[in-house]
Amino acid sequence: MREKMFSRLEEIYPELVEFRRDLHMYPELSHTEVNTPKKIAAFLTELGLEVRTGVGERGVVGMLKGGRPGKTVALRADFDALPIQDEKEVAYRSRVPGVMHACGHDLHTAGLLGVAKVLSENREALQGNVVFIHQFAEEVIPGGAKFMIEDGCLEGVDVIYGAHVHATSPLGVVGLNEGPAMANGDMFEIEIAGKGVHAAMPHQGVDPLAAGSQLLLNLQQIVSRQVDPLKPAVVSVTAFNGGDSFNVIPDKVTLKGTVRTLHSDVRDRVEESIGKIAENTCNAFGASVNYNYVRGYPAVVNDRAETVFIENIARDLFGEEKVQRISPTMGMEDFAYYLQKVPGTFFWVGGALEDPSEVYPHHHPKFNVQEEAMKYIGRIFIAAVMENLSGKSEVPQ
Amino acid sequence: MREKMFSRLEEIYPELVEFRRDLHMYPELSHTEVNTPKKIAAFLTELGLEVRTGVGERGVVGMLKGGRPGKTVALRADFDALPIQDEKEVAYRSRVPGVMHACGHDLHTAGLLGVAKVLSENREALQGNVVFIHQFAEEVIPGGAKFMIEDGCLEGVDVIYGAHVHATSPLGVVGLNEGPAMANGDMFEIEIAGKGVHAAMPHQGVDPLAAGSQLLLNLQQIVSRQVDPLKPAVVSVTAFNGGDSFNVIPDKVTLKGTVRTLHSDVRDRVEESIGKIAENTCNAFGASVNYNYVRGYPAVVNDRAETVFIENIARDLFGEEKVQRISPTMGMEDFAYYLQKVPGTFFWVGGALEDPSEVYPHHHPKFNVQEEAMKYIGRIFIAAVMENLSGKSEVPQ
Amino acid sequence: MREKMFSRLEEIYPELVEFRRDLHMYPELSHTEVNTPKKIAAFLTELGLEVRTGVGERGVVGMLKGGRPGKTVALRADFDALPIQDEKEVAYRSRVPGVMHACGHDLHTAGLLGVAKVLSENREALQGNVVFIHQFAEEVIPGGAKFMIEDGCLEGVDVIYGAHVHATSPLGVVGLNEGPAMANGDMFEIEIAGKGVHAAMPHQGVDPLAAGSQLLLNLQQIVSRQVDPLKPAVVSVTAFNGGDSFNVIPDKVTLKGTVRTLHSDVRDRVEESIGKIAENTCNAFGASVNYNYVRGYPAVVNDRAETVFIENIARDLFGEEKVQRISPTMGMEDFAYYLQKVPGTFFWVGGALEDPSEVYPHHHPKFNVQEEAMKYIGRIFIAAVMENLSGKSEVPQ
Amino acid sequence: MREKMFSRLEEIYPELVEFRRDLHMYPELSHTEVNTPKKIAAFLTELGLEVRTGVGERGVVGMLKGGRPGKTVALRADFDALPIQDEKEVAYRSRVPGVMHACGHDLHTAGLLGVAKVLSENREALQGNVVFIHQFAEEVIPGGAKFMIEDGCLEGVDVIYGAHVHATSPLGVVGLNEGPAMANGDMFEIEIAGKGVHAAMPHQGVDPLAAGSQLLLNLQQIVSRQVDPLKPAVVSVTAFNGGDSFNVIPDKVTLKGTVRTLHSDVRDRVEESIGKIAENTCNAFGASVNYNYVRGYPAVVNDRAETVFIENIARDLFGEEKVQRISPTMGMEDFAYYLQKVPGTFFWVGGALEDPSEVYPHHHPKFNVQEEAMKYIGRIFIAAVMENLSGKSEVPQ
Repeated sequence: MREKMFSRLEEIYPELVEFRRDLHMYPELSHTEVNTPKKIAAFLTELGLEVRTGVGERGVVGMLKGGRPGKTVALRADFDALPIQDEKEVAYRSRVPGVMHACGHDLHTAGLLGVAKVLSENREALQGNVVFIHQFAEEVIPGGAKFMIEDGCLEGVDVIYGAHVHATSPLGVVGLNEGPAMANGDMFEIEIAGKGVHAAMPHQGVDPLAAGSQLLLNLQQIVSRQVDPLKPAVVSVTAFNGGDSFNVIPDKVTLKGTVRTLHSDVRDRVEESIGKIAENTCNAFGASVNYNYVRGYPAVVNDRAETVFIENIARDLFGEEKVQRISPTMGMEDFAYYLQKVPGTFFWVGGALEDPSEVYPHHHPKFNVQEEAMKYIGRIFIAAVMENLSGKSEVPQ
Repeated sequence: MREKMFSRLEEIYPELVEFRRDLHMYPELSHTEVNTPKKIAAFLTELGLEVRTGVGERGVVGMLKGGRPGKTVALRADFDALPIQDEKEVAYRSRVPGVMHACGHDLHTAGLLGVAKVLSENREALQGNVVFIHQFAEEVIPGGAKFMIEDGCLEGVDVIYGAHVHATSPLGVVGLNEGPAMANGDMFEIEIAGKGVHAAMPHQGVDPLAAGSQLLLNLQQIVSRQVDPLKPAVVSVTAFNGGDSFNVIPDKVTLKGTVRTLHSDVRDRVEESIGKIAENTCNAFGASVNYNYVRGYPAVVNDRAETVFIENIARDLFGEEKVQRISPTMGMEDFAYYLQKVPGTFFWVGGALEDPSEVYPHHHPKFNVQEEAMKYIGRIFIAAVMENLSGKSEVPQ
Repeated sequence: MREKMFSRLEEIYPELVEFRRDLHMYPELSHTEVNTPKKIAAFLTELGLEVRTGVGERGVVGMLKGGRPGKTVALRADFDALPIQDEKEVAYRSRVPGVMHACGHDLHTAGLLGVAKVLSENREALQGNVVFIHQFAEEVIPGGAKFMIEDGCLEGVDVIYGAHVHATSPLGVVGLNEGPAMANGDMFEIEIAGKGVHAAMPHQGVDPLAAGSQLLLNLQQIVSRQVDPLKPAVVSVTAFNGGDSFNVIPDKVTLKGTVRTLHSDVRDRVEESIGKIAENTCNAFGASVNYNYVRGYPAVVNDRAETVFIENIARDLFGEEKVQRISPTMGMEDFAYYLQKVPGTFFWVGGALEDPSEVYPHHHPKFNVQEEAMKYIGRIFIAAVMENLSGKSEVPQ
Repeated sequence: MREKMFSRLEEIYPELVEFRRDLHMYPELSHTEVNTPKKIAAFLTELGLEVRTGVGERGVVGMLKGGRPGKTVALRADFDALPIQDEKEVAYRSRVPGVMHACGHDLHTAGLLGVAKVLSENREALQGNVVFIHQFAEEVIPGGAKFMIEDGCLEGVDVIYGAHVHATSPLGVVGLNEGPAMANGDMFEIEIAGKGVHAAMPHQGVDPLAAGSQLLLNLQQIVSRQVDPLKPAVVSVTAFNGGDSFNVIPDKVTLKGTVRTLHSDVRDRVEESIGKIAENTCNAFGASVNYNYVRGYPAVVNDRAETVFIENIARDLFGEEKVQRISPTMGMEDFAYYLQKVPGTFFWVGGALEDPSEVYPHHHPKFNVQEEAMKYIGRIFIAAVMENLSGKSEVPQ
């Protein structure tokens, strides 16, 4: 059964490549996706699925009902692109200036559509249902996942899986981790108001640049002194801007930055600590401070059992040596929101180009991956659905 | 004699006011002065002086030869305006958007022309000569003085006087100091090159914002630890700019700033120390640094005897209570260059508006002064010239 | 068989308690242990073991040869005490002023002797040998382990186990981890030489306190900016001393501190980075620096298979709920050296007193544990030896 | 008259040298002076002056009444020694271990006694009185001056003069300044309480060393950013002590330091600012702070007229080239208290040894000066008294 489905996936692979390349040529930025969801909806509709569009704003959800009742498995792919100029030399290079699929979401989408096609052709064999979640706006906080969930995309769902192609891991290598896998990703902005003054008379003003420098350095002590060294955390100031002339101490300076953590107690402490340090540092010099902390995606926390479940499938399909337990990353993903609602796991599948000189990291203007990665993701998804909906597991009535 | 000249100054005062207001309505920025020098040259030419234009680039020099040989006294006024939008409500408000006489140079110019008129009408009485130096571009480094001197404006000059109206001192109050009176004014720019990286993986890059903050704070130690507390010095970073996003540690950051000192040994030490601190601070973290230090105007160093000379004149003219010895300021003036060549003194004459609510500091969009200040400056200049050229002093042959 | 041995352990338990309390009353500091090794050697000799004393300096090694040839299993306990004044109210409180068993080494020792007694009474059943390593000087770098290994204590040993009582975990709870479990523990000392001077004339000297403060803060950036957030690291300055008067800036300041890491690449980077930062920070201000970095114990890296082996034994003996996988700690242990030579694992066994108000952490003047913990450690050791030497495993010839 | 007195001073000079050397051999520390005041009192008594001892605690005051009524002039010398071990090779080296006249107070005392002897022999010529103030405890805050004034030593005094030998200026060179001449000298002590913890777990404690370093650097900004660059100020941390081990972050750290200013508004701002910065810096990291600021001597502010008066005397006696106007120093002197009550001036008289290799600064273990300096001081004092009490000035009735 499963083998037959894998063969079918192989057969339709050229169609998936074509779909992916079309998305690649016409990428759409987060929250401006118009044609991408239309194309997805058309594809799913043609398969005979119940398709809902505009989910949460721009998401597309396809429901595949199996021949018999059973569990409901959700599979998710994201479809937004990035504000990056495509610098690759390929025929299907982006036609949209300054916009590019530089993170593989086009491949995720095409791959998931292939899975939908194969499974829909075998719906009678399914004891349960499959929900295909095509998500918009993964790249920008607050992310599309949250809104799609609020709009009901997880209703009735028992378990969810998501995969991400990895541009620097060899083709087909599967990376998994259980527990905290990707970071809580937060942002902050701090505006320090001093008192501008001629640079020759600093004592008549309050120098916000000096206070800001002090603050930036004080913030280093959060990670070095205040966080359990065994609990990863990053506090990065990414922008520091104030003043432009040579003669005038400016009125204010603005700092921006990000916080990444894997544990919620650390997240809480960091958020509180930045505020406390900012306020006191500025008070020390008579400056005032305006602090804004925005919580972004929570940590991706993979369910232990579901991770072992996918791990076993991948070992079985591709061999032990292709499957790795990996460290968490400090990157972030709004797949985290789905995992807050239902168990599941989010895993990586390698797609590095064969020529090492062509391998670039995600979000790079020359980013690209082997399209074959779609097949690896596809097989795991198909196998995972079949294991869940084969009747071997208990069926909730 | 002198009294007669003062009366004449009074008579022509309305003409000077008119001239000043014309300049005020049509201000010209440093190095773009075209009509201002034309008007000045026309005025001086009409008085019968030998007039040289384009001196050093855009300066105007008028030579008044006295009836008998003697010393040569130079008087200087500057005539450039500032890139500030005039926000005053007066009839003669600037007609040039974004450009304004916000430092009183229009008044200096008109006042000096008045002096030229009165003296030229009395040239037979002079045992010696008077050089009227109308200088362009005082407001921007490297300043017009240097170029006018190179172009010969001080040839044969024995002594020089300059005056500046003061917007926050009462009308006619004269402020003097001997020795260092205004600062060496230098500028620096430091570019720190780190290695940009995603903010969640700071260890893979080199954070230039952290290095820059460290540097800014290290620079504080120059004044607090390395400079003789009895020798005034200011090191101000006035701009710190790097990064703009929330997620990316930038490649570089740029710091700008100014250094003000009154003593050349301190100036040397500060310049060297900034470089040493910048290089080492950045090296500590693997960042590289590009340091550029530009010496601006040197310190204004007033001659002791000439200062006492003007002090006595002012006491005599306006009374003891109108004359003050004042502290140096950390501001700067390219009058300094003249004083490096010939003895002289640069003094302040109060011109604060009577209504305190209308008093604003120099370089303020609402800056203004009492035009009467021209008369005070004018009388001192006339008296100083007459004392020098009266035959009482020894005459060099 | 095993059950019989556990019963025997129970029988001799009072003897072990007595032995432990005797050590507790007469603790000996690291490198000054005289009577402790004598008592141990006497006990082991009486059991009929081959006993070697003065191993590596003061260690005691007992060799129990089994009835048949087979693998050699090593078990290790440490026996030195700490320079802490005992503040507990118990009958067996330390009789040595300022010296105390505040880390449980007395219990480790007595427990291991119990194991030796039970196993020696059953030597005929053993297919292989057991080496009892009683180690001196675990508490101070460079530690006794290294010297005992150099003196041959691991010769012929195939696997090694060590256990540590844990004062704040419930009795009998076993904590294990595979891979890096305890930290590389290094020390550094930095002497900054400035130039002392009267405090009213800082510009004539070089202030080492300012340079030292800058350095301490710069060091914070190692962990916050230069180390992979997923690889734990601690850089702590623990002492900062310079100056004593109110009027004199001192000549020098001394900083001491420790570095803890779990990965050798991080260790290398931190060591190098401290030196680079120290040198550059001091150079920036004209101070000179003397940097000394001493590598202490390496990381305890537990063998995966042996950890699972002990984990399974513990689950079997005490139940699932008593066995936990735990996080690494940033503490250090010279058991690390044994694990660099032979596979094995080092695990924790809870011994918290029942009354929570009496529970104090290790190295506290009121530290104490339930002596029953000896039985838990003892059973695991006995079981581990029997599994290894039962003939079920392959026997090396 | 004056010349005769100068000759007499020359005659008794050997006696003064002897007196000075006796003090030098038997120096007494501040607040422990017993024999020194006895010797002084004996000398003055023998001259026939009204002598009061124990003034303010240990001071000696001699009153010389002139032949006719007139003004009262005070002359002051201090007599305490320093806790420094004498390392000079001279016959009159200190016999008291660890105590030494390393600041010239012995010479001040002997010189003033010589003046007393000469003037007392000419008392009939005096139109007025002379008060000889021999002060204890100048070297330690709060200083003896304050207590002697409270005890009436300035009663009836119209003007006061004080002189200090200068070890690195050529013999007989007189240095004067009017206005602020020596600094307000204050002390502070800051104790930062964090929370001690094992160095491997910094997040469980509060690191007072990191807070202290931050504080020390923040304090640099007082002088560099908050004080008028034209008003000298020094804030020096002179001691920073916390921690001693390699493994434990200490509970607390102590900073000590001094503040020197010439203007009372700056003094106020610095005192306030240190407290504000200390509190906020520590709060930022959860540490608490205990701040103690002790005001020491106020600034020595010399009266303008009296300074010119002494300047003219010195020029007249020693020639123009021996008299200099000098910069203020950031050192301190409790002569300041006398000048808060009556006009006067405090001046320096050079006494550098002839061999430059033997010249050491004040408070150095090898400090010494030419004893001839006594004569220069003596002549100025005598001349100043005679000018004041000659009847030429108006006499208050």
